[in-house]
Amino acid sequence: MSGTIAAKPLTVGAFAPYGEVLEASGAPDYMINAGLCGRYHDRARPETDPEGEVALSIGRSDAISLPLTLKMMERHPDGSQAFVPMNGTRFLVIVAADENGVPGRPEAFLTNGTQGIQYKRNCWHGVLAPLEGPADFLIVDRIGPGNNLEEHHLAAPYTITAE
Amino acid sequence: MSGTIAAKPLTVGAFAPYGEVLEASGAPDYMINAGLCGRYHDRARPETDPEGEVALSIGRSDAISLPLTLKMMERHPDGSQAFVPMNGTRFLVIVAADENGVPGRPEAFLTNGTQGIQYKRNCWHGVLAPLEGPADFLIVDRIGPGNNLEEHHLAAPYTITAE
Repeated sequence: MSGTIAAKPLTVGAFAPYGEVLEASGAPDYMINAGLCGRYHDRARPETDPEGEVALSIGRSDAISLPLTLKMMERHPDGSQAFVPMNGTRFLVIVAADENGVPGRPEAFLTNGTQGIQYKRNCWHGVLAPLEGPADFLIVDRIGPGNNLEEHHLAAPYTITAE
Repeated sequence: MSGTIAAKPLTVGAFAPYGEVLEASGAPDYMINAGLCGRYHDRARPETDPEGEVALSIGRSDAISLPLTLKMMERHPDGSQAFVPMNGTRFLVIVAADENGVPGRPEAFLTNGTQGIQYKRNCWHGVLAPLEGPADFLIVDRIGPGNNLEEHHLAAPYTITAE
């Protein structure tokens, strides 16, 4: 099994096992504001344990460059986590299914600049990785007591390349 | 009392009676991702009644032009509502304090392209009003049973002007 993973374009279908793509694709679910605005309704529900609350934060991240060496993945057992660019920034999304408590072979996706994403609760993922920066992202995630972060350092790093 | 209202630059302090400004201003609360990313932490908490849930939607809105004739304001008794531009779009924010069940004299703000906002639960506001468009916004609001919309049609419209 190769240690190199080519990033693919992010699509709703390919990302479905890991979470939701937040984008205005296709026809809106309905119009609001007297026809001025199309609403793409209820595209993701933030998840939290009962002790936590959903909150809005901002992340201002430096850019990464490709190829990227992936050494660590993380997950949040108590809640989902969404990242939405505030200025059209394309970013790299790395995710993996769980295999007996550790990440399986990752998949990598590149957003197109009009997309945000939400990771499901407890989905293994890489850190925020904009292709240009510094870039601001709205973060929607769970805030509350306890340790809501699990990190897994990979025994053998992967190399993530552009498609 | 004039029927003309000049929009002011949006600031955290001026907007505080109505809700929160979502922006990466000042120093980050802490760094994440091995120093790659500054986190501006917990800038707003979405509100919902117990029957509702917080959800993520997208709004794709046509642009408005200034001066704008303000004929209607609305509020949502069961939850807060946040709008965050996904591509740096500046937008007009119109809000009003409640006066005996109807909006008082509105205040108008212009965002600077790096800002989103969250209206508090039950805050009177105008509809989404980007200065350029079509523009995509992440919407964070309450979804659930019942009628979570109250509209108030103004007896005398206001004219909203650029500063």
